[in-house]
Amino acid sequence: MSKVKFEYSDHLEIIGVKGIPEIRAGDDLTAIFFDALEKNDLCLESGDAIVFTSKVISKSEDRVVDLVEVKAGNEAERIAAETDKDPRIVQLILNEIREIVIVKQNNIIVETKHGFVCANAGVDESNVEDGKAVLLPEDPQSSVSRLRQEIEARSGKEVSVLTSDSFGRAFRDGVSGICVGVSGVPALLDRRGERDRFGRVAMITKEAIADEVCAAANLVMGEFNEGIPVAIVRGLRLKQRDSNIEDVLFHRANDLFR
Amino acid sequence: MSKVKFEYSDHLEIIGVKGIPEIRAGDDLTAIFFDALEKNDLCLESGDAIVFTSKVISKSEDRVVDLVEVKAGNEAERIAAETDKDPRIVQLILNEIREIVIVKQNNIIVETKHGFVCANAGVDESNVEDGKAVLLPEDPQSSVSRLRQEIEARSGKEVSVLTSDSFGRAFRDGVSGICVGVSGVPALLDRRGERDRFGRVAMITKEAIADEVCAAANLVMGEFNEGIPVAIVRGLRLKQRDSNIEDVLFHRANDLFR
Repeated sequence: MSKVKFEYSDHLEIIGVKGIPEIRAGDDLTAIFFDALEKNDLCLESGDAIVFTSKVISKSEDRVVDLVEVKAGNEAERIAAETDKDPRIVQLILNEIREIVIVKQNNIIVETKHGFVCANAGVDESNVEDGKAVLLPEDPQSSVSRLRQEIEARSGKEVSVLTSDSFGRAFRDGVSGICVGVSGVPALLDRRGERDRFGRVAMITKEAIADEVCAAANLVMGEFNEGIPVAIVRGLRLKQRDSNIEDVLFHRANDLFR
Repeated sequence: MSKVKFEYSDHLEIIGVKGIPEIRAGDDLTAIFFDALEKNDLCLESGDAIVFTSKVISKSEDRVVDLVEVKAGNEAERIAAETDKDPRIVQLILNEIREIVIVKQNNIIVETKHGFVCANAGVDESNVEDGKAVLLPEDPQSSVSRLRQEIEARSGKEVSVLTSDSFGRAFRDGVSGICVGVSGVPALLDRRGERDRFGRVAMITKEAIADEVCAAANLVMGEFNEGIPVAIVRGLRLKQRDSNIEDVLFHRANDLFR
């Protein structure tokens, strides 16, 4: 990961982009986003960080599965019985993972093929038609890179694009917005080696900027039926053209809790 | 925890409050905050969420320790050798905890007396004079309740006050702003039982609002030498007068990773 020139902002805006319709497979998210900007009298500014929920990216990329087409195998049936879940949902989870981290108290915590440790591999039955489930984007990092290129080409502004999901956390109840793909702002801002206000060199300071941006965006997107799947975080002065959410994933050897 | 009437906002501002001087034991944080508002031509608005770093609260409450006054015991010496830390810092950590969660790869992950699972019990040597360390506030929940009362009395506005720290996360590298005390907005927004846009009842949706607010605030406060220890998150429409950060802490039986 390249070293990032950082500069902090002392003023940010978080703008929920209203009026985005239900997204269907094959929809042009960029075109829909610009239509919504126009309806809201919003113009993009250079430096804007645009956060899309993973769900709208998944829907546009046809990552919605009809459960009648899912056949649960033996492992799925076994884990489903243990966790009181639909065996077909468990099969979808198993299809999306590298490994199971822990199955406990009706929770299935896994590492997804992308390397994210989360519940249920992000497989989600909310805000989709009954009998269907939404998977995480197959390659959210590519999705945001493509969206950034399209949005920059159309707007002429240098922006960043992130995609967020809501993950539970170890040791704390509740979910928080978290980043599953980032292009244009750093995933981690590595400030090791800099000096603090007393001249002392930082021991460890890597700030999870992309996750903080997605947590902030969640405050205007909500978790549920607000119908605001896109937010703009305006005023960040951080740039990293080659950012990648993989920067935030531990090498297995450094992961304290596995 | 009381049920919260929620209403999402589609526009938030995050304002870093500049010009706050180095805080000393006994300083009146409320008076200093209002002085800084005046210098910045800022007025409080009803609904403002005011986020103080735990460090300024700790400094005002005399939670700064001179390391020459710390005598490390046997357990501290042993863990210090294992983790390549100053034994006196380890002793301070041991003084602040209920239990050690894991010691691994030079990291000491603990549960603090408050119930927070974090590295080093929040004991921090950055942004303080050489030879000193800052502890977390003794009772950050009381600190924010008192600050909220003082700020509301002086401003006549109904506000919320939070205090933030930067914690590492399980399964993800880097630190993120997180809440260690909240008064006025919910720690957890419990939306179980509500219906999504397709009429389906939510299975689990408790959103960690206070943590998201502190993550957002961190984007203007930075991690290090920015000298912005207070931020205002403006535009939230969530209120919970009896909120408490304990709402976000798992009952031990529900904690999957211990």
